[in-house]
Amino acid sequence: MTEFLAARREYQPRGPLTLVELENSGLVTGQAITMDDRVTALFPRTSGQSVLRLTRGTGTTLSRQTPLRVGCVFSGGQAPGGHNVVAGIFEGIRRVHRDSTLIGFVGGPSGILKNQNIEITPELMRAYRNTGGFDLLGTGRTKLESAEDFATCARVFAQHKLDAFVIIGGDDSNTNAAFLSEYLRKSGSNTCVTGVPKTIDSDLRGPWTETSFGFDTAVRVYSELIANIAKDALSGKKYYHFIRLMGRSASHITLEAALQTHPNVALISEEIARDGKSMREIVDDLARVIAARAAAGLNHGIVLVPEGLIEFVPEIRALIDDLNDVIATHKDYLDSLRGFTAQIEYLAGRLKRESAGTLAALPLDIQRQLIMDRDPHGNVALSRIETEKLLIELLAIRLGEMKSEGHYHGKFAWQTHFLGYEGRCAAPTNFDANYSWCLGLTAAALAAGGHTGYLATVHGLTNPVETWQAVGVPLVSMLTMERRKGKDKAVIRKTLVDLNGQAFQRLATLRDEWASRDDYRFTGPIQYFGPATLVDRVPLSLFSNNTCAVE
Amino acid sequence: MTEFLAARREYQPRGPLTLVELENSGLVTGQAITMDDRVTALFPRTSGQSVLRLTRGTGTTLSRQTPLRVGCVFSGGQAPGGHNVVAGIFEGIRRVHRDSTLIGFVGGPSGILKNQNIEITPELMRAYRNTGGFDLLGTGRTKLESAEDFATCARVFAQHKLDAFVIIGGDDSNTNAAFLSEYLRKSGSNTCVTGVPKTIDSDLRGPWTETSFGFDTAVRVYSELIANIAKDALSGKKYYHFIRLMGRSASHITLEAALQTHPNVALISEEIARDGKSMREIVDDLARVIAARAAAGLNHGIVLVPEGLIEFVPEIRALIDDLNDVIATHKDYLDSLRGFTAQIEYLAGRLKRESAGTLAALPLDIQRQLIMDRDPHGNVALSRIETEKLLIELLAIRLGEMKSEGHYHGKFAWQTHFLGYEGRCAAPTNFDANYSWCLGLTAAALAAGGHTGYLATVHGLTNPVETWQAVGVPLVSMLTMERRKGKDKAVIRKTLVDLNGQAFQRLATLRDEWASRDDYRFTGPIQYFGPATLVDRVPLSLFSNNTCAVE
Repeated sequence: MTEFLAARREYQPRGPLTLVELENSGLVTGQAITMDDRVTALFPRTSGQSVLRLTRGTGTTLSRQTPLRVGCVFSGGQAPGGHNVVAGIFEGIRRVHRDSTLIGFVGGPSGILKNQNIEITPELMRAYRNTGGFDLLGTGRTKLESAEDFATCARVFAQHKLDAFVIIGGDDSNTNAAFLSEYLRKSGSNTCVTGVPKTIDSDLRGPWTETSFGFDTAVRVYSELIANIAKDALSGKKYYHFIRLMGRSASHITLEAALQTHPNVALISEEIARDGKSMREIVDDLARVIAARAAAGLNHGIVLVPEGLIEFVPEIRALIDDLNDVIATHKDYLDSLRGFTAQIEYLAGRLKRESAGTLAALPLDIQRQLIMDRDPHGNVALSRIETEKLLIELLAIRLGEMKSEGHYHGKFAWQTHFLGYEGRCAAPTNFDANYSWCLGLTAAALAAGGHTGYLATVHGLTNPVETWQAVGVPLVSMLTMERRKGKDKAVIRKTLVDLNGQAFQRLATLRDEWASRDDYRFTGPIQYFGPATLVDRVPLSLFSNNTCAVE
Repeated sequence: MTEFLAARREYQPRGPLTLVELENSGLVTGQAITMDDRVTALFPRTSGQSVLRLTRGTGTTLSRQTPLRVGCVFSGGQAPGGHNVVAGIFEGIRRVHRDSTLIGFVGGPSGILKNQNIEITPELMRAYRNTGGFDLLGTGRTKLESAEDFATCARVFAQHKLDAFVIIGGDDSNTNAAFLSEYLRKSGSNTCVTGVPKTIDSDLRGPWTETSFGFDTAVRVYSELIANIAKDALSGKKYYHFIRLMGRSASHITLEAALQTHPNVALISEEIARDGKSMREIVDDLARVIAARAAAGLNHGIVLVPEGLIEFVPEIRALIDDLNDVIATHKDYLDSLRGFTAQIEYLAGRLKRESAGTLAALPLDIQRQLIMDRDPHGNVALSRIETEKLLIELLAIRLGEMKSEGHYHGKFAWQTHFLGYEGRCAAPTNFDANYSWCLGLTAAALAAGGHTGYLATVHGLTNPVETWQAVGVPLVSMLTMERRKGKDKAVIRKTLVDLNGQAFQRLATLRDEWASRDDYRFTGPIQYFGPATLVDRVPLSLFSNNTCAVE
């Protein structure tokens, strides 16, 4: 036990009185939801539900005569605050009845299928509350989606006599939670299902939920490091630092980090996709910034690159899709070929002409990464692609051309960084400690109220904690029909950066200034014990997002 | 101005009364120094000086009738606390006379040669005190070592009427400070020269100085991130994280970070050199740890790798030396060959047989890095070599062999990290803020006393700040004759990790336990505003180092 953990253990997460004194609150029906008929058809038993709001003084309260039995699980990647969600559920169900029980399934959703679990105790919660990581229960990426999985869930939940089950997960997990909820209702199970929105990328933002927990903490760690690196660049005046940031589909992390630290350039995938920019155009834009800075005597800088960038560049997206198809078809023969040269020759002859051209134009290292590194499904391992090095190699060529044309007179030296795992398991900030605890309490409220098929959400996050509102949002209302792999599927669509939103607009307004003169903002590391102005901050990008579809 | 910087600005660095009230203190002569005769011969005017100690109640004080004029400069890589050194000098010389002046040379030692400078003002100091980075003055790697450079220094110093000049730098810079001091005395200059020990690697430790400033802050940033990554590994139970840490010659950073965070493995270059371990043996050791953990069901872990490791592996060291020789001899022809394949074929025929064998056994990526990435002097760019990836590639092969022999039954998935620039410009911890401020005050004391050729040091760092002792150590006493590039040179030898010291012994005692069961220590980010147990910590490795040659 470090001094840090010992001190942080004493933090009492905060929330509105509706949640803190859950036993005196009640859930009231809010607005009805209109939905796509095709989604409704898939959920005969759980569609048509209304939004639920937690309030005091409703007459009926959540306080109970009989204890609750609830299960919970972490699904997918880690995010700071997970343990506080569990703490919120635990404390919440014991508020409504002191003898309530919380069972945690171990190692992610596979822990349900294998019925591996532990009972949560006050001692465990005291040890884990306010700590980062998911190590109390572990996590995993097993998806619960087949009828067989659902049947096992029903059997295990029945064995534990669970009144409710809470899945703490991302878009896929919450989609599956909607289906599980429907399945359990249909099969006569008494277990209610609740989702809690978790994705480090914050791509569950949108009309239903303002952000996912853990985003604030992770971005603050990244911002600390970006600011340190910027200070280094400014002191040494030697290097361009290309910093790739976690965030596969959406660039929320890069956008928030940019608003926090004011880099010279922050690429936003959604903008590149909207404008249909080719790799060449992206590199040209960067080269222009670097040349202009060099003309002003500046040969250093900070460039933020979202991890998922290359998937948004049209010609690279097409190449990846084509590669995945060809690799899938020829996998066995391909694997029999030893070495990169043999594999690339074989592949080149089978790719579409445009794809082969795109591939050949990439630096050799990137060609290797595209072809040799595969994910567990055999696809191109996109998270391993060092996009920042790709940009640098292409930039070096472009700047060389510009130099010989007399349009660039600087020196281009660089360093690369990837920030991801460094931030996912940090101890949650006060914001995330409070928010995730409140999400857990909201999930407890939904369990106590006997509601199934809801996402626990908390609204008004940019306002004082005491005014936050706990809201249950029907999971099915979040679903959209989408064509995936040739089939119509009901899915929760990831929320990308809104290019018309205030957060991106602020970046768009300021970035020319950031590019030309250094206005780096030094945020410092997360402070947990100082003045309120330091310890009680809210992500900047939320301020553009506080109008919510839920009234 | 962020809230963090605004709050941190208010921190008043602390020191012993001898430094805080410098005007009431005096310098008294301490022990004489015995030295190598060959060094003495090189310094007829500045050798033979004794250690100086700052004390109160000596009769003569440093308080002056006339103002002092002092210059200072940053030399080499950034380290947290640099601005507080400047603040200490500034405040110190104004304590002994309120009208004293501090001139900062800009952009490193080349700023002296070009006579680019700014005058330090109270407003500047207030804005920069307690902040990280060297951006107040910038820095550079120009070395002052030729007679011509020295003559320019003398002229510039005379022009500014400098009573003293303070160079804030590492082993090379302080070696050059010794020569500059001798030169100035010989040439009749009145400017005294003082060195301040700065190296992020802390390789200026040893008999003269307990650590260099900034080491504490940098390692605490790295420890924060290592602990976060360890928590991630423990939560997801999927990956081995190989974390390369800054520290080219000495493994002090890795050792301190290991004592802070308790990784499963921490490689220490000095131990590998002592034991003459080959790359094969290092990989075998690692594979044994990984296989034993897999047998216990653990397929995740944390491995710390010092940046300079490969230079300490005998066969790789020999390869690098051989490569540098061959590249130097055949540079022009080599550069005319396009592409890696052509270059490696040409080189292979010219390397010694053992070197060619070592090179051929390395993974292709590493061969490329060795041959294609050159530093500005044309040598192999060692800091670009991704040692952690080399280890991983060799480990994957070894674990594959062990699997086919039935000695390994795990799954080896990995992630890599390099932590360096992330920590060099963090805002100094209280320890570094105090320490570097005290070093600056000590430099001011030496300037006020009219002493030249001294290193400013502060002793007793593991004791309460109020008991710290300011000591001037003759720079020439730190010099040793060493054969470099076929010539005897007087140099300050880098201080490597003492394998008989308490810090390493502690690691050696605990590491088997850390390897077999996870005992990760979660340190949290640097706290600046919390309880003293959190904000006033001292590096753990210093506690083994508090007996000092200076009595």
